[in-house]
Amino acid sequence: MAETTETLEDRLSRIHRALGDEHLEAVDAVLDDLEPAEIALLLESLPPAARIRLWQRVPGEVDGEVLLHVHDEVRSTLLDDMDHEEIVAAATGMDTADLAEIFEDLPQQVAEDMLRSMDALQRERLEETLSFEEDSAGRLMRTDTIAVRSDVSLETVCRFLRWKESIPDNTHLLMVVDRDGLFQGTLPMARLISHPPEMAVADLMDHEVDSIRVDMKSRDVATLFQTHDLVSAPVVDEAGLLLGRIVIDDIVDVIREDSEQALMNMAGLDEEEDLFAPVLPSAKRRAVWLGINLITAFLAAWVIGRFEDALDQIVALAVLMPIVASMGGIAGSQTLTLAIRGLALGQISSTNSAWLLRKEVGIAILNGVLWALVVAVLALLWFKSIAIGTIIGAALVINMLAAGIAGIVIPLLLKRAGIDPALSGSVILTTVTDVVGFMSFLGLATYFLL
Amino acid sequence: MAETTETLEDRLSRIHRALGDEHLEAVDAVLDDLEPAEIALLLESLPPAARIRLWQRVPGEVDGEVLLHVHDEVRSTLLDDMDHEEIVAAATGMDTADLAEIFEDLPQQVAEDMLRSMDALQRERLEETLSFEEDSAGRLMRTDTIAVRSDVSLETVCRFLRWKESIPDNTHLLMVVDRDGLFQGTLPMARLISHPPEMAVADLMDHEVDSIRVDMKSRDVATLFQTHDLVSAPVVDEAGLLLGRIVIDDIVDVIREDSEQALMNMAGLDEEEDLFAPVLPSAKRRAVWLGINLITAFLAAWVIGRFEDALDQIVALAVLMPIVASMGGIAGSQTLTLAIRGLALGQISSTNSAWLLRKEVGIAILNGVLWALVVAVLALLWFKSIAIGTIIGAALVINMLAAGIAGIVIPLLLKRAGIDPALSGSVILTTVTDVVGFMSFLGLATYFLL
Repeated sequence: MAETTETLEDRLSRIHRALGDEHLEAVDAVLDDLEPAEIALLLESLPPAARIRLWQRVPGEVDGEVLLHVHDEVRSTLLDDMDHEEIVAAATGMDTADLAEIFEDLPQQVAEDMLRSMDALQRERLEETLSFEEDSAGRLMRTDTIAVRSDVSLETVCRFLRWKESIPDNTHLLMVVDRDGLFQGTLPMARLISHPPEMAVADLMDHEVDSIRVDMKSRDVATLFQTHDLVSAPVVDEAGLLLGRIVIDDIVDVIREDSEQALMNMAGLDEEEDLFAPVLPSAKRRAVWLGINLITAFLAAWVIGRFEDALDQIVALAVLMPIVASMGGIAGSQTLTLAIRGLALGQISSTNSAWLLRKEVGIAILNGVLWALVVAVLALLWFKSIAIGTIIGAALVINMLAAGIAGIVIPLLLKRAGIDPALSGSVILTTVTDVVGFMSFLGLATYFLL
Repeated sequence: MAETTETLEDRLSRIHRALGDEHLEAVDAVLDDLEPAEIALLLESLPPAARIRLWQRVPGEVDGEVLLHVHDEVRSTLLDDMDHEEIVAAATGMDTADLAEIFEDLPQQVAEDMLRSMDALQRERLEETLSFEEDSAGRLMRTDTIAVRSDVSLETVCRFLRWKESIPDNTHLLMVVDRDGLFQGTLPMARLISHPPEMAVADLMDHEVDSIRVDMKSRDVATLFQTHDLVSAPVVDEAGLLLGRIVIDDIVDVIREDSEQALMNMAGLDEEEDLFAPVLPSAKRRAVWLGINLITAFLAAWVIGRFEDALDQIVALAVLMPIVASMGGIAGSQTLTLAIRGLALGQISSTNSAWLLRKEVGIAILNGVLWALVVAVLALLWFKSIAIGTIIGAALVINMLAAGIAGIVIPLLLKRAGIDPALSGSVILTTVTDVVGFMSFLGLATYFLL
């Protein structure tokens, strides 16, 4: 019985120590106990130099599987370290679906050589898989399906299974097809065993089975698996011909990547980003995001600049103005995050967005008034001016209202325009809350105090 | 063959129209086609009044399953609408693990009545499940395991399976135990069929199987499933006694909730939050977060207040100071988000955090200098002052450096203190970047310009 109590953190320290001491047997001992996906996690957790040293100790026969499990960016750092022959060896023997996943990351020359070294059937399969759109069911599909005909008896099925050399261990469903290969339904293995052998497949199989069209989007496939509690599902073409199956362990990756994406995109990062990427490429990528934000910061500064007279005469305005902008930004980002999750889950549509907007306006008014009172009193005590207290309170209500509306409207508009709301939503939102915040506060002050 | 082309959005519009027209047969027609998890998604996508009207049309026999699939907060709105008998009826017949999940949300009186109406075995099972910690393997475990002894033949196993009335369809592994019930290994169903009946279980089973301790954390169980590509796994107690199994569809929920949590927590929201919660409770919950942020906003204002003289004399400082704070905030939140994801994946530990810190310092210096030059030139052109350009550039470098360091150090310290870095990391980070930003810019200006 395998013990699984060692955490990734413990393993990391063990590997670090072993790599530091050049104690390569100890490194190999750690690697020996690990699944390829665990080696992948470990590699991703190491700075570049240590990562390459560990990678060189990873046995060639698991190279392919490890490459499959790392994020895109880490994969290219590993591929960079492999020579032509090692890459070809790693890719040989990979399942077509797996190979397709990394194929486009391979160096041009390696890819060409590999295509040449394949037999016609393999090449055709790979090209077919690559012809499906990325993020579609066709790319997730495995072709190791076991199909039986509906008009045979259970005994014949058992004989067929015994005759087959190997059945994938995670097969719990047999696919049932007609004589033309058209998908008919499924037969759970468990049922096959617990029923009399003379029964016909047709009498025992499930006819009402969710089949997945090969062009279905990965995200929709994942939703289907989750809502229908599926473990595996048949994939068919538009004519209903059985092409393969999708198994849940590949769906788990889709779900994880999808949720990571929103988190990373909201900070202007890519979910494939390597935590241990070298400084220069990381700095370059992040520079773009900072540049975009700089434009909005200058826009806010320009708005402030319109009110130089007020700032010149009343220094309290400069002291207090960031409070108005900041509270609007916080309130807006709460609304925006809720909206982004709702859109990702498909829960927001034209039918309920009006209700949602009214709700957020309601919240903005309640919290706006509450915190406006607090801020007004504090400002009054600080600067001994009822006017300034009143003005900052009013500006806060206005900005939080703008934040609540923008938090719903911006992601909806972006979604409609086909732009990822998680990626650009927060920049646009901050622009709105900064501009409205500074403008309302300084504008009211100019109007009433000068 | 079931067609699955209708999206959640299409369904929402259909339901909305049908509810609006009081066309209840149309509502029922939509519900008829749906799995409980899909009904749950639909209910979560409706404003309160429409939600309750739809809930009243959901057939009683799926009530329990639907309750299981909605977020905690939505569940309580649904439970509020049910009377005592309906709740008891929904809970009756639920699997123990499922019942345990909603049991603590039930009204006190209902819970007591239900315990009383159970037989001794059911009650004992429920109490045992509830005795396991939330978010542990014990709570995820199903007890519908099929266990066979290792010393019997495959034929005996098949006879036993045929004798059993039903085998769960998603059973693809038989658990193998010794005569004391101690877990020995597993036997894939597929292998059972494809081998001669006279073979002994012991000769065919897998001995090296990952078993899960009942007190293992859900998050670790999820990692194990992902890294080992598991579909189901045995759960054992500390003595190695087989207690049940965990199936991947429950793990998928853990993974999704886990990733949602980071996203929601970073905005000070709870991942169980109902998108369509009424205004008052939503406003109340968010008020806390706004209040915390107000403290940091006043802290920043107080820092600015220390430099009233400078602001009084040079109005350009008030105009430009938000740029320094804002760029620091953006840079810091990028580092923070990367660190939070790294910590969630277990990829950051004491062995590599120093490397990571150096990397972020390097990025901060590069991007700091780059954008400092840009900002300095723009400020120079705007205010025709080399001094102001130089000072804002220097302040920007200082603040981005502080942001990079804080983005790594804050989440690590929070993690060590047992506090969720996603929840409080961004507030603390903003405090640092605001305070350092205003202080460095206005401080340098006071020192060199006054």
